[in-house]
Amino acid sequence: MAVRSFWGWGNEGEALKSREINYFARLLGNFIPSGESLKLPPRKEDLKFPKPRFNPPKSFSVQVDYSSLERARHCYGRSFKDVFRGLNNDFTDPPDAVIFPKTKQEVIDTLDYCQKKNFAVNCYGGGSSVVGGVEIDHDLLSNYSGWISMDMTHMNNLVSLDKFSRSANFQGGILGPALEKKLKRHNLTLRHFPQSFEFSSLGGWIATRAGGHFATGPTHIDDLLEALEVVTPIGTTVTRRLPASGAATDENRLWLGSEGILGIITSAWVKVQPRPTFVAKADIAFDDFKQGIACLKEIAQSGLNPTNCRLLDPVEAFINRVSASNKAILLLGFESYDHEINFLFDRGKEICRSYSGELISESLITKDQINSPVISDSAAESWKASFIKAPYVRDALIRIGLIVETFETAVTWDGFDKLYFNVIDQINREIKKHLNGNGWVTCRITHAYPNGLAPYFSVIASGRSGSQISQWNEIKRIASETLNKYNGTITHHHAVGKDHREGYYGEKSEIYIGYLKNAKKYFDPESILSPGNVLKLP
Amino acid sequence: MAVRSFWGWGNEGEALKSREINYFARLLGNFIPSGESLKLPPRKEDLKFPKPRFNPPKSFSVQVDYSSLERARHCYGRSFKDVFRGLNNDFTDPPDAVIFPKTKQEVIDTLDYCQKKNFAVNCYGGGSSVVGGVEIDHDLLSNYSGWISMDMTHMNNLVSLDKFSRSANFQGGILGPALEKKLKRHNLTLRHFPQSFEFSSLGGWIATRAGGHFATGPTHIDDLLEALEVVTPIGTTVTRRLPASGAATDENRLWLGSEGILGIITSAWVKVQPRPTFVAKADIAFDDFKQGIACLKEIAQSGLNPTNCRLLDPVEAFINRVSASNKAILLLGFESYDHEINFLFDRGKEICRSYSGELISESLITKDQINSPVISDSAAESWKASFIKAPYVRDALIRIGLIVETFETAVTWDGFDKLYFNVIDQINREIKKHLNGNGWVTCRITHAYPNGLAPYFSVIASGRSGSQISQWNEIKRIASETLNKYNGTITHHHAVGKDHREGYYGEKSEIYIGYLKNAKKYFDPESILSPGNVLKLP
Repeated sequence: MAVRSFWGWGNEGEALKSREINYFARLLGNFIPSGESLKLPPRKEDLKFPKPRFNPPKSFSVQVDYSSLERARHCYGRSFKDVFRGLNNDFTDPPDAVIFPKTKQEVIDTLDYCQKKNFAVNCYGGGSSVVGGVEIDHDLLSNYSGWISMDMTHMNNLVSLDKFSRSANFQGGILGPALEKKLKRHNLTLRHFPQSFEFSSLGGWIATRAGGHFATGPTHIDDLLEALEVVTPIGTTVTRRLPASGAATDENRLWLGSEGILGIITSAWVKVQPRPTFVAKADIAFDDFKQGIACLKEIAQSGLNPTNCRLLDPVEAFINRVSASNKAILLLGFESYDHEINFLFDRGKEICRSYSGELISESLITKDQINSPVISDSAAESWKASFIKAPYVRDALIRIGLIVETFETAVTWDGFDKLYFNVIDQINREIKKHLNGNGWVTCRITHAYPNGLAPYFSVIASGRSGSQISQWNEIKRIASETLNKYNGTITHHHAVGKDHREGYYGEKSEIYIGYLKNAKKYFDPESILSPGNVLKLP
Repeated sequence: MAVRSFWGWGNEGEALKSREINYFARLLGNFIPSGESLKLPPRKEDLKFPKPRFNPPKSFSVQVDYSSLERARHCYGRSFKDVFRGLNNDFTDPPDAVIFPKTKQEVIDTLDYCQKKNFAVNCYGGGSSVVGGVEIDHDLLSNYSGWISMDMTHMNNLVSLDKFSRSANFQGGILGPALEKKLKRHNLTLRHFPQSFEFSSLGGWIATRAGGHFATGPTHIDDLLEALEVVTPIGTTVTRRLPASGAATDENRLWLGSEGILGIITSAWVKVQPRPTFVAKADIAFDDFKQGIACLKEIAQSGLNPTNCRLLDPVEAFINRVSASNKAILLLGFESYDHEINFLFDRGKEICRSYSGELISESLITKDQINSPVISDSAAESWKASFIKAPYVRDALIRIGLIVETFETAVTWDGFDKLYFNVIDQINREIKKHLNGNGWVTCRITHAYPNGLAPYFSVIASGRSGSQISQWNEIKRIASETLNKYNGTITHHHAVGKDHREGYYGEKSEIYIGYLKNAKKYFDPESILSPGNVLKLP
């Protein structure tokens, strides 16, 4: 059985082997800080944690785990900073205990007890937060008797399936693969595939407004949510299953993006659909990124609604083994479970040609072929494999001393050029000034809309040994300020957590922040839920 | 210049002529209450209003109108009950004054002054509310020095147009036709056409989460909103123009459906698009409504996303002059500004055939024809004309003593049969029991989603002369209870206002209502904004 790493991404067995790490070490040789060698991960025997302060009476029947291993696993999310600290056995302020509720009532009992005893409760789904969402706010911890991580993954059932209305009700703690497996039996899919898919939960997707890997159409969990049940410290709320409603404000939208600070999502109805039977994919090369952007814009504004429409800049295309030819690559895809999509696909390719896009490969999978085991080896497939593998590669690079992290945003089309140019320019200046020029900043466009796009930046750079976190923090500070200055959002789908609070405050009005604080005070009067996420609290 | 009616729908000149009214009178002869003859509307000379209590100092520079005519016009929305009262010169509690701000600062000044002097402020866009949204809450009025109607229609400019990102920034008070006219100059459209289009405003659409007449796709204003500016009693908030964001809760969604109780929407960025160049339409007949529903469901779940997919039951089809053959009629339409839609159209018709749908008429308008003045005389066109004209017809029927009103809902596909059967059954019982059987209840499906649909019911019935309002209230009470019992929403796109409060409370959890009250208290501490909309207030 797969064992989850307590310091790095995903499963221990999936981590890169020495041979693979050496490949990257050779490739990135001059990025490796001098004096740095392949860092060995901590062993569980090395974990030395303070005695847990959480000590419920026998009547508290919820499963509690006090082991150092679970406490370490639930201490951090999985950002660069988190993995770096885990790798260095730096587990400051681990949770006093990890709680595994199995029922709504156990969630209620846990919140009741923690309110009474003044324990902070950080909700934990798959633990893949890259914004400090599951970590305790170290500055606030002294306000509490201690903190617990509430791991929701034992609440992982399919509660009900309404095939007629194409909706399914799952408990909040179910992870991506289990959810899809349960749907697959009925030839259905949620079609929500964030990069964290394997290690993120339905409740977590909703709480953080996750974005799937499809570039257009209903790819955000926001658009796939039908109804939900939320337990708050003051009571439970359930929204009605409805395809739409015009009855005042939409309650679902209060919980979408609530990031654990207002309540715990115990179950949700989501909109499902049949698995596709017509699939078409093409990989198109552009001489430069700018030309690709112009083409992407026309496609996004065409109403064709491709399922995939993702643009990689030349370095991204190279790193992800999609192209070695220094070109920007557009991954274009269409799919349907009802009708052929040839016409839409042809029109998509026609638009690409009109922007001098060069068709590198294409595949059209028909009804008969879709269940065959043959997998196309197109760039899109390479990219997808690389996409899922990417966090493991990142961990390996961190082990050889590199700074490896991403940040993402969204901006209207008219604002893109300035935002893009300035982000790249500012980060490159920083790399030149403080990192001896040893670094790359790359960009891909993960989502495209009629009115704008979502650029996703990756940074790989040399760090000063031991100072990688502070160096990354400085890069991130510059990036966040630049995004704000050029009218991007602080995050398109990574959430605010604790790391993006400053950027979030920069983006919102004072009275909206006040409103949100007020809502928190209403639902969570003792402020026990994920304190410090989104809001700066006293 | 068109003159707005002060008691009925729309413009005075558009009201039905005697000849037209007689046509309906003959058609509906036995529905007309005995002793009832064609009621003459009140004249403006008949309006006798109390002296306004609103008396700002000279320094208050915002335009104020104290005329009885404006006070009458702004006294009510345009529901059956409103028109009936207006027709009977029953203008209870008219506003003390009508305020016409021209700038954001004037909105702020008005709110400041009204807070200080304890005047309630009901925001007024086009005045087409059918749920009591613009009327004062008569039970709460004694808590105030008086009330004013804040008419936003002088704030009707196109502030900025970003053609590149396909977004336009309008002031909140602009009405549908003016907004479309300004966009048409650039060959653009918002493509949002609620039935109230002519007499409703952008700010009103947002505040009430209006639904357009397109049956699928981005037809709700929710999906067309990019950003907005809102003035509240405690300050102003502006959301950033973004195509998407994952930064905590979506502020736009707080204002969508806020129904005037939290703030005044002074301007908004909306997503626009080119006008269509490919249009295909078909009218398809089904032997019965149920067969049509099954077909509608398959189309809604096909991913074809027709622009129109509206199903009329046989009586609706007859009344709207679409069909005289006692069949249910599906109005199916596709459009695009980028590509031909023949393939999608063909597939849509193929689905209809598989449900024994009979093609009555079809038209395919190509690029070359689209600007020609020839208008197809298909059922869809008859229906559209009838759709816009419907409220005028309703006013005429009210003048001959009938009860004429609509209510609408949305429900998941699996809940439809029970909901539909019980609504029709309950209303028919009521008509039989209390209205001598003289009445019809009809149904059309206005919007279709993969997971459900939006049924829209119309009632035309005989009333006891003078008791029409109480009789309607009883029908409405029964309808609302039935919708709630069978898991519909109290409103799909008419909003809550004051008339749907009971139903809204039935649909929401106690703690969500508490949250909303809390939000109101935060933004509007003196509770001056549209008191009694959505929330029951002390």
